[in-house]
Amino acid sequence: MDLKHATAIFLPAIEDELKRQIARLDEARTRPFYEMLTYHMGWSGQGAGPEAQGKRIRPLLVLLTTASCSAPWQPALPAAAAVELVHNFSLVHDDIQDNSDLRRGRPTIWKQWGVPQAINVGDALFVLANLAILDLSPAFLPETILQAGQMLQSACLDLTRGQFLDIAYENRSDLHLEDYWVMVSGKTAALLSTCCALGALLGGADEEHQLAYRDFGHYLGLAFQAQDDLLGIWGDSALTGKSAESDLVAGKKSLPILYGLQKGGEFARRWAQGPIQAGEVPTLAETLTREGARLYTQQVVDQMTDLALQSLRLAEPHEDVAEALFELVDFLLNRQA
Amino acid sequence: MDLKHATAIFLPAIEDELKRQIARLDEARTRPFYEMLTYHMGWSGQGAGPEAQGKRIRPLLVLLTTASCSAPWQPALPAAAAVELVHNFSLVHDDIQDNSDLRRGRPTIWKQWGVPQAINVGDALFVLANLAILDLSPAFLPETILQAGQMLQSACLDLTRGQFLDIAYENRSDLHLEDYWVMVSGKTAALLSTCCALGALLGGADEEHQLAYRDFGHYLGLAFQAQDDLLGIWGDSALTGKSAESDLVAGKKSLPILYGLQKGGEFARRWAQGPIQAGEVPTLAETLTREGARLYTQQVVDQMTDLALQSLRLAEPHEDVAEALFELVDFLLNRQA
Repeated sequence: MDLKHATAIFLPAIEDELKRQIARLDEARTRPFYEMLTYHMGWSGQGAGPEAQGKRIRPLLVLLTTASCSAPWQPALPAAAAVELVHNFSLVHDDIQDNSDLRRGRPTIWKQWGVPQAINVGDALFVLANLAILDLSPAFLPETILQAGQMLQSACLDLTRGQFLDIAYENRSDLHLEDYWVMVSGKTAALLSTCCALGALLGGADEEHQLAYRDFGHYLGLAFQAQDDLLGIWGDSALTGKSAESDLVAGKKSLPILYGLQKGGEFARRWAQGPIQAGEVPTLAETLTREGARLYTQQVVDQMTDLALQSLRLAEPHEDVAEALFELVDFLLNRQA
Repeated sequence: MDLKHATAIFLPAIEDELKRQIARLDEARTRPFYEMLTYHMGWSGQGAGPEAQGKRIRPLLVLLTTASCSAPWQPALPAAAAVELVHNFSLVHDDIQDNSDLRRGRPTIWKQWGVPQAINVGDALFVLANLAILDLSPAFLPETILQAGQMLQSACLDLTRGQFLDIAYENRSDLHLEDYWVMVSGKTAALLSTCCALGALLGGADEEHQLAYRDFGHYLGLAFQAQDDLLGIWGDSALTGKSAESDLVAGKKSLPILYGLQKGGEFARRWAQGPIQAGEVPTLAETLTREGARLYTQQVVDQMTDLALQSLRLAEPHEDVAEALFELVDFLLNRQA
């Protein structure tokens, strides 16, 4: 099965399951609240549609992993919904924390309904994720469901640690590459590795294979983030598009930027002088390239990708699904935007 | 056992368990994050101490209920910690949503560290609550722990619905008493009833008794809120203290205020003209009394208290603990501040 075939089967099932989970809040007296959630999920309001829904990578990873353990994927749907709900809870709060006006091309929840309601929408998405996991009953043993819950909550705890660092970093300039890895492990890799570990658990994999799948998700997450950081400076839209798309202008503490700061050269000196203007972006990107930041970041992407692929091979995915999984890695890590 | 005796035994155990749960975040690289949580819990920072910790009513209710089912209360400690963590998660987010500067006499988290970190601290407290419930293993059967998780998450979902209404009401004047009950059921009664239901579940009560305990907590919550609303207008500090202590000045949609608005008399006409000033508080409180709002609210407190006591008697608490439980009701519902 290739990725196109897999997504054609899985994505509609994921969307249905998400709708079923969120329908818990579909009550007459609090209808506008429910509609805030369906808006965020991309199902209602102006601009609703596939573009507004995101790629649903995380639930896809859960189901692909379960299927690659030669187990039926349908019973794992509540777990797939749970990770996507956690992801979206963190996005809604993230958008407030980052003061972001747009998400997937539409006004963010806080922009649309104010900060107080947006905090509450994020909270509700998290509660719904927790309830979704419990829906694994009766298809799975109570012990297995508790283990799934433990995995999900551990990832969420890592998420809050990563988020703390991300916010704390905004006002600090004494950052080290080491801090970057703690932050990114929490913010990106924790949930992706949990998707794969959950899929393997529910697919009935033994501990050794569960660990291999978990490692796969972990390195995939790190590679994905480093690639994202690369595109944030040298991607097409970062270089030639709106200035807001460049991490240089946004002042984001990304991997190449931290590398440049640690280098202490021309880039670091310019950074210390205050916010980067849109007009400086091409020149500063060149400076970073010259100082080795681009090469370094690309090497990290390649290294982490190798480690991810190595782990995936150790996990021995069933041949029917392996193709789709390898294609997904390729899709995520060879993006140009 | 009277309430004094019970709290002398339970409170230190609750505090220890809470510390054990929150220690999950005690890591060198994110130490300031951990300290935000210990600050909020009243254990660290300026003004730390019993006053800053709150009354821990909810975990106390869990343990008292478990003990009143003639079961050992110690194994229920993780559940007691979980409900207190949920309560505190909601307080941290509430303080942002309400723009409150002070909590238990100290600057709130958002006031101290900004809104982005405060959102994240609330999120972390919720994650820790979810992890705490899982710590009921191995003392309880996996099936029981899943049921406990389901109860807690259902309460949290009600909490978000109540919170939605509370925020939405701020900008609306077409409110009805009916809306009040949905809001208060979510914001106050849901968690208190879940405390009692959890305690009964973990105490091994049968379904009938579990339901009686749940009802007890539900009516206790409604009575508690109505009493709070009464004190918010006619309590000593509301009438004579700082103006900020009066719900009239805060513009809170409390039970007597909604009653007065529904009445459509002198009070409603004044309310429609804009914010109440501190100097008007005594006169307007008298107007509300004259229009029947005080009597009505007192009747609600009495009614709900009767229903709570009736449910508690149906629950047949063990005589060793019954005294403490009845005393707790008395303590909560006959407060003067």
